[in-house]
Amino acid sequence: MSSQNIVVIGGSAAGPKAAARAKRLDQAANVTLLQKAPEMSMASCGYPYYIGGNFDNRDQLLSTPTGVVRNEAFFAGAKGVQARVNTEVTAIDRIKKVVSCVNVITGEKDTVPYDKLVICSGATPRHPPIKGINLEGVQALSEMRDADKLRELRDSGKVKDVVIVGGGLIGIEVCEALADSGMNVNVVEMLSQLLMFLDWELAKLVEKHVASKGVTVHTENGVAEFMGENGKLTGVKLNDGSVVPCELAVVSIGVVPNVDLARASGLEIGGFGGIVVDEHMRTSDSNIYAAGDCVEIPNRITGKKTYAPYGDLANLEARVAADNIVLGDSSTFPGTVNSGICKVFNFSAGSTGMSEKRAEAEGYEVVTATNASPDKPGFMGAKLLVSKMVADAKTGRILGFQCVGTGEVNRQVAEAAMAVMNGNTIYDIGVADLPYAPPFSLAIDHFIATAHILENKMAGLMTGICNAEVKEMIDGGTAPFILDVRSPVEFKEMRLNVGETLIPLGTLRNSLDKLPSDKSAEIITFCKISMRGYEAQRVLEANGWTNVKVMEGGIMAWPFKVEF
Amino acid sequence: MSSQNIVVIGGSAAGPKAAARAKRLDQAANVTLLQKAPEMSMASCGYPYYIGGNFDNRDQLLSTPTGVVRNEAFFAGAKGVQARVNTEVTAIDRIKKVVSCVNVITGEKDTVPYDKLVICSGATPRHPPIKGINLEGVQALSEMRDADKLRELRDSGKVKDVVIVGGGLIGIEVCEALADSGMNVNVVEMLSQLLMFLDWELAKLVEKHVASKGVTVHTENGVAEFMGENGKLTGVKLNDGSVVPCELAVVSIGVVPNVDLARASGLEIGGFGGIVVDEHMRTSDSNIYAAGDCVEIPNRITGKKTYAPYGDLANLEARVAADNIVLGDSSTFPGTVNSGICKVFNFSAGSTGMSEKRAEAEGYEVVTATNASPDKPGFMGAKLLVSKMVADAKTGRILGFQCVGTGEVNRQVAEAAMAVMNGNTIYDIGVADLPYAPPFSLAIDHFIATAHILENKMAGLMTGICNAEVKEMIDGGTAPFILDVRSPVEFKEMRLNVGETLIPLGTLRNSLDKLPSDKSAEIITFCKISMRGYEAQRVLEANGWTNVKVMEGGIMAWPFKVEF
Repeated sequence: MSSQNIVVIGGSAAGPKAAARAKRLDQAANVTLLQKAPEMSMASCGYPYYIGGNFDNRDQLLSTPTGVVRNEAFFAGAKGVQARVNTEVTAIDRIKKVVSCVNVITGEKDTVPYDKLVICSGATPRHPPIKGINLEGVQALSEMRDADKLRELRDSGKVKDVVIVGGGLIGIEVCEALADSGMNVNVVEMLSQLLMFLDWELAKLVEKHVASKGVTVHTENGVAEFMGENGKLTGVKLNDGSVVPCELAVVSIGVVPNVDLARASGLEIGGFGGIVVDEHMRTSDSNIYAAGDCVEIPNRITGKKTYAPYGDLANLEARVAADNIVLGDSSTFPGTVNSGICKVFNFSAGSTGMSEKRAEAEGYEVVTATNASPDKPGFMGAKLLVSKMVADAKTGRILGFQCVGTGEVNRQVAEAAMAVMNGNTIYDIGVADLPYAPPFSLAIDHFIATAHILENKMAGLMTGICNAEVKEMIDGGTAPFILDVRSPVEFKEMRLNVGETLIPLGTLRNSLDKLPSDKSAEIITFCKISMRGYEAQRVLEANGWTNVKVMEGGIMAWPFKVEF
Repeated sequence: MSSQNIVVIGGSAAGPKAAARAKRLDQAANVTLLQKAPEMSMASCGYPYYIGGNFDNRDQLLSTPTGVVRNEAFFAGAKGVQARVNTEVTAIDRIKKVVSCVNVITGEKDTVPYDKLVICSGATPRHPPIKGINLEGVQALSEMRDADKLRELRDSGKVKDVVIVGGGLIGIEVCEALADSGMNVNVVEMLSQLLMFLDWELAKLVEKHVASKGVTVHTENGVAEFMGENGKLTGVKLNDGSVVPCELAVVSIGVVPNVDLARASGLEIGGFGGIVVDEHMRTSDSNIYAAGDCVEIPNRITGKKTYAPYGDLANLEARVAADNIVLGDSSTFPGTVNSGICKVFNFSAGSTGMSEKRAEAEGYEVVTATNASPDKPGFMGAKLLVSKMVADAKTGRILGFQCVGTGEVNRQVAEAAMAVMNGNTIYDIGVADLPYAPPFSLAIDHFIATAHILENKMAGLMTGICNAEVKEMIDGGTAPFILDVRSPVEFKEMRLNVGETLIPLGTLRNSLDKLPSDKSAEIITFCKISMRGYEAQRVLEANGWTNVKVMEGGIMAWPFKVEF
């Protein structure tokens, strides 16, 4: 077999993986990696941590675990891949099977022939057509040089006020990085919440935590104008007319796939603007594969195409593409369940599958349960987890799971991702055998306990109500009888102060005369995390009350003000 | 419907769960909980942390998350359950449906009628018939009073030397507790390794870590005699004749199910000595259920019965039993995949499914992969994970996964437990969508990467060899050509020093003349974690060498001495 030419466009995440894997599978192949930027294999998800000063050596973003920078010499020596940086691909000739490229420093042009081509052209931050967006001080975070610039600004100590435009994953990570660096941070988000992968009431807990770190969060507000003097940013005017003075604005409102090359060469582009690929990561041209932030992939739950520009998926897609190029189309990539996680100061926030609002938008009839609990036994230094499980109302299949808090969110979301991918029901999880020891989890793991709550709800044993709905009733003056079943000590320390009645659970069976005599009156029970709230509901229903609801997650999941 | 009498025997883990759940489901029922010990609902898995001084208030082991001790008053008030401590059940009359009990303090006898009975009689530590076992200073750890005693001894400062008999989960946890308390600890284990749920080479890494904390580990050695003076322990004589002086010996060589009551009442007892239950947790008497450490349950992989006395399973089994008592036999408990985890000083060690040796003993033809890697990117403060995946050689189904190290073992084992329960193959995991962000994992999660290695092995791309096998060859004087492909800097810092040749991967393609000219010569490659070792194998095979093997896990998984 004569050597085949494999050309990979793009050298960030998917590209290097595809190139290195292809070469490992076919040592005889000529593998060429063409990268526009001066760096390769950048750990771009690490940019916020570099910007925030978690480490000082930018080479760490570009290095192997043993500290070798992944430059051209590394790719040649260790990987057998001919990598060329500063090299922009300008055209793909699918008939001649050749790509044209130009060295962006020297202007030198070249062509590279291919037998198989992999397009890993990535994505570009959205650049909203807002007045003043090109002012000095308005900054995206996409390339290594953006990270360098933001780190430089941080180290200069010259930036006092910064506005983050967009409250998504990257926005929040940059918010933390800059706030921890001593800047005064404002976050502006058009929608009603941060982190759209969460449902509102969990996002609100994150927002509360972010605010507790001195960050000002503006939701349901957008940027009307970037204001400047002499070409430099001086402030941001919001849609509500208010002005936030700042020297720096970081715009991170999502990315769009880079498909100009693919489109110009006639490859099929999908409804989300990404390159269309089949389950083998093959484009509409059988000699061309694509992977990473430039493609559309299936949502594994709905089967519909989606756009999921995540670094982990880019690597897995690229591996599948390389396998199929060398070994024939034997490997398939099934798509995404939208698993994600981020650190938000002392909180972690993660999600997999669909939120309630997303599942409803997809047409599912859903049931949900919210669970607030410690992540470990109290004597092991427990920290809080607040989770919400979303399941199909007919089958109990878990469609999604979200978790936020200071506790061990990581394991929870990973377990849930496995459950969602496997199509597990709440009943499967209710009897799951997960690793337990006090340093690591509760005896009944939080994820299992959340499934139990949802089982109880589906079986009609527990009727839940969302705290946001309770708050709406209170604010609307239509609050029902609200029953706090915690202890007097707990009540004294912290309470909702919304007109609730305190009857500790232990005395409830003997205090039924303190409840509404009308057995059909709406009663809402809660406690710290609403385990006792649920016990109270069982007691009241056994005693004839017919309209009792548990405020899920209790006071620990209450995203509004509490009284101390 | 008239009120049913539900009686629960045993008040540790399963019992209180069954009682409380049954009452929540049927508020009209009379639920009685009979407990021999003075405490109830003890977090017995937390005993080692209490003994080790992680916290000082023993009530924390007996309390709800909000700090209320789960005593008789608590069960009455909050749970509606009539709990009676110090109450030993002496007989079950299945014809009359009544249990006889006695108050172990007052001697008062009583009978309690039942409609449904749940036996949660737990287990008792094995008490080996060794001379001197009844000496003062020879101690088990099973009941609360054992924990109290050990904590008291720790606080007294009078114990300098201690021998832990048994290197299983509890032995290792107590070892840590007492070593951290300043005692000189020896661990004696009959078998060739600690923590039998691990394969030898991973257990050896744990042993190395334990030894680094000043603990002396004696494997393949047993206790011949507990030696004493005036009724007090003075030392332990081992099977090899050596004597370890000590004032305290903690014996934890496993537990046996408490089934005397069940056996005396004619209930079926299984081959592992536990009560036989069906998938509804029902015994051979349709009015009697059982749960927790006294029962046998199915292994979910093999379908065979096994004995799995774990606190988490006890809770889940009890919940199923209560459901079936109140709601009819609608809930099933599928059994265990033997998931477990423990903290061992700075290490965590966990496992799910079967080890290689266990799977082979069960008759499976298996393939395995060992993966040593950081848990996170280096710039986030990565820590080490060493894992081994065991899969069915025919189908690639994951039969087991073990993980040890200073890194995030918890998430890894939880993911693997989900995979094993779901019957996932390595191919399923190779394209899994798990949550990723630099503070939490690598872009390709360690668990996924382990599946990739095993894929490569099954596809014939990589041929692995276990470090223990390499060591045996070296010790036997039959060592092949051993090729270290790390950098000279890494080599200088740490090396095997077994006659290996250093050729850094980056120069390998130009140094082929340094390799054996006989292309059939056996060559073993490795690096720090053996990613580069694998690359080297690919290069050598492409250049005609036919017998190249990668030493899996590289130097980081090497459980023997290294040179610095």
